[in-house]
Amino acid sequence: MTEINARIDAGESAPKYYRVRTELAAIIDDLDEGDPVPAERDLAVRFEVSRETVRQAVHELLVEGRIQRRGRGTVVASPKLTQPLSLRSYTEGAVSQGRVPGRELVTFEDVPADAEVAADLGLSVGSTVIHLERVLLADGQKIGLESTYLPARRFASMARSFDPGTSLYAAIRATGVTFDSATERIETVLASPREAALLDSTTAMPMLLLNRISLDTDAVPIERVRSIYRGDRVAFLATLRE
Amino acid sequence: MTEINARIDAGESAPKYYRVRTELAAIIDDLDEGDPVPAERDLAVRFEVSRETVRQAVHELLVEGRIQRRGRGTVVASPKLTQPLSLRSYTEGAVSQGRVPGRELVTFEDVPADAEVAADLGLSVGSTVIHLERVLLADGQKIGLESTYLPARRFASMARSFDPGTSLYAAIRATGVTFDSATERIETVLASPREAALLDSTTAMPMLLLNRISLDTDAVPIERVRSIYRGDRVAFLATLRE
Repeated sequence: MTEINARIDAGESAPKYYRVRTELAAIIDDLDEGDPVPAERDLAVRFEVSRETVRQAVHELLVEGRIQRRGRGTVVASPKLTQPLSLRSYTEGAVSQGRVPGRELVTFEDVPADAEVAADLGLSVGSTVIHLERVLLADGQKIGLESTYLPARRFASMARSFDPGTSLYAAIRATGVTFDSATERIETVLASPREAALLDSTTAMPMLLLNRISLDTDAVPIERVRSIYRGDRVAFLATLRE
Repeated sequence: MTEINARIDAGESAPKYYRVRTELAAIIDDLDEGDPVPAERDLAVRFEVSRETVRQAVHELLVEGRIQRRGRGTVVASPKLTQPLSLRSYTEGAVSQGRVPGRELVTFEDVPADAEVAADLGLSVGSTVIHLERVLLADGQKIGLESTYLPARRFASMARSFDPGTSLYAAIRATGVTFDSATERIETVLASPREAALLDSTTAMPMLLLNRISLDTDAVPIERVRSIYRGDRVAFLATLRE
């Protein structure tokens, strides 16, 4: 469908960079994953445009995840990881897509709840919360940064024995807590410099931001999660029912 | 939560533009919707940075929808429209948020289905489909562009009397068709030049792209929809259940 739109846009009236983007997308369609993309200087000659115009077209295809940087070159990217929007954990979602999930620990500490975290978790400001922050990987590629806040009173003993390389949801369920529902807000943002560095990305790359509050069967908040996913590597899939 | 992250990032090691972005976000927090944002040249003087650095900070806050252009100036933006991810129509979602919904017709014509549309709708390639494309408005602001494909055989008579300023879902339901489920893929993209022009936006502004296929109670595809929403004006809200 993107391509239908691209063709509509690729008429004589479209800006030069967009015509190059459309032609380059067609070239990429005929290549395989991991194949090198022609060098920018060669594309500039081929399309009779400036390097700057080629660079803009390449930037668009990088944002769309059609191509990716590898070392000093650019190659055809693998398809985005399609993550189901569900109460299943990241691990289960990635495995269902045939990807090997992984996690790298960034932060795991007790902190006092600020006003927002306290309100979201139904705690008083300054109550102790556990902050767990992990980089999410799929097939070894960094695709997201997940930052979870849990009430310390409820989960301190779970946290003492929790292995941050494993599924948090499995550990929470093992304490006898049942996830019942969650609300998740989805929007697009630019990464902060810190987030971009943790995700091997740049602050110019659009990200998907997900803010989740999960409730147990008594409607008591379990966790407050802020996740940021690389927009060039991840899409979400929702199943809607009447 | 964005602000928690912003504070972490705003240390001495953060790039200059990001420190300006954080300070400017704090200034905006103390202003009201519609208030003018200080001019870039004044901000450059106040923060002792270049105009280019201020411009990068302003760009980030524009992308986040914290501020928006109005005429030749920049003002504090109203909160994003939070649209529920559901089988309800755009109209119903906007009204539930207290916004006045509107639609502007762009395209309404019969076209032959290409391979992708045909596959999604369970038709043969070249079958006639109705293509309806509308700009979605909230309180008079352009927030999205919705492009729907419907099988002509099933909906031709509905289409003859359909008023494109009204709810398509209401018109489909009035033919006796019941929406049962839909799959919706959500990702972030840059707008094409045509899309940016239709949405009064730019090709540098990240958008949310939603691709939906809706099924009736016999699991027959009803419609194939490609919607692109301004990332600075819209967030989506999913309710997840076990």
